Amino acid sequence: MHVFYTPDISSDTYTLNEEESKHCSRVLRLNLGDVIRLIDGRGGLYEAEISGITKKNVQLKVINKQAEFGKRNHQLHIAIAPTKNIDRLEWFLEKATEIGIDEITPIICDRSERKIVKEERLEKVITSAVKQSLTAYHPKLNPTISFTDLIKQNGDSVKMIAHCMEGEKPYITQITKPSQSYLILIGPEGDFTPAELDIALQNGYKPVTLGNTRLRTETAALAACFEANYINR
Amino acid sequence: MHVFYTPDISSDTYTLNEEESKHCSRVLRLNLGDVIRLIDGRGGLYEAEISGITKKNVQLKVINKQAEFGKRNHQLHIAIAPTKNIDRLEWFLEKATEIGIDEITPIICDRSERKIVKEERLEKVITSAVKQSLTAYHPKLNPTISFTDLIKQNGDSVKMIAHCMEGEKPYITQITKPSQSYLILIGPEGDFTPAELDIALQNGYKPVTLGNTRLRTETAALAACFEANYINR
Repeated sequence: MHVFYTPDISSDTYTLNEEESKHCSRVLRLNLGDVIRLIDGRGGLYEAEISGITKKNVQLKVINKQAEFGKRNHQLHIAIAPTKNIDRLEWFLEKATEIGIDEITPIICDRSERKIVKEERLEKVITSAVKQSLTAYHPKLNPTISFTDLIKQNGDSVKMIAHCMEGEKPYITQITKPSQSYLILIGPEGDFTPAELDIALQNGYKPVTLGNTRLRTETAALAACFEANYINR
Repeated sequence: MHVFYTPDISSDTYTLNEEESKHCSRVLRLNLGDVIRLIDGRGGLYEAEISGITKKNVQLKVINKQAEFGKRNHQLHIAIAPTKNIDRLEWFLEKATEIGIDEITPIICDRSERKIVKEERLEKVITSAVKQSLTAYHPKLNPTISFTDLIKQNGDSVKMIAHCMEGEKPYITQITKPSQSYLILIGPEGDFTPAELDIALQNGYKPVTLGNTRLRTETAALAACFEANYINR
């Protein structure tokens, strides 16, 4: 069944915007009475019937609604240094959305080769992954901030920093429990600097390893995502 | 340190082929006495010093060798239906190589939209990931075969099929132990057919789930890869 993302749905009727209406009527060639799926990005999964249709205006009537669809009992927030090649970050966003993530914050680190990201573009990547994977909760993309600003933020998450420097580094699963909130920092190509690691440790971040293999930034982030979800099955 | 892939190294001296020599001398601008890393794809990790260099011919002298570098005590073989968009399969190959995989077999299924893959191209993707991630064991890419031909092959692996149909489906970790050989089948967009599932079950394959979220083919394959490696840490 075709899925549409309707974050502003608030009643049992809904009108698709012009772009979505065109897609629905012209591309998908759906007609009066056809049923589509809607997700609001806040846990709502709807089945809606086309009650009125023109090329630019598709009206829907909700015939079935499921709340808290696929709700998870843990919160996963990954703060990641945007990759030099932005495709790799976009790829991570798509995959993390499929697997399950709640919050993503792009962070600019000392060794970041990329200091600027187009958030609108990243939002689009996330939204299309939400639709494709039927994830009822739209992951939240936070504004890009500096590593230092992020570190100073408070919160009740289990805070972890995945780095490649020497030292005692347990696995994520060794220092976390299910049903917690997790915040995991993933550094840029070339890793965090020792100074950044120190600041993180001083602010209650625990160093973690993602295994013995050398992982690219986006692979490391996805590995962390898999592991945090794994212990919450 | 720069890494070169030298599968045919057999003594303490080695000469890079013309392409690699050009890369070494012209692109990297390395000189006599500089030290580079070599991996042979069979567990050998070498440090070699440049003992002679021209634009098209770089001679090396091995000064340090490590055998069975990063050897793992389990074997992971994933058979995957090539994705319609080949980039997605290539992406999986890169990531699986980083994370750890031993064998990959492209399989053509009833619902495969893509029936042909260029294996040379996929080999290149794997090799560059091997070099980037310093994986001393080069994953083996098997020739593309039909689902049915693969199913009929014997072997002592724990054989699993990840599908999206109804039915009892444990997690990979629930039916496997560490240090085993695993063979996991990942279907095409649109999943395996019920008939394919039946054949697999008849041939000793166990159905498995990769979680409740709807995953793309390449994401499912990587999830299986993570899980099989996870239990072997």
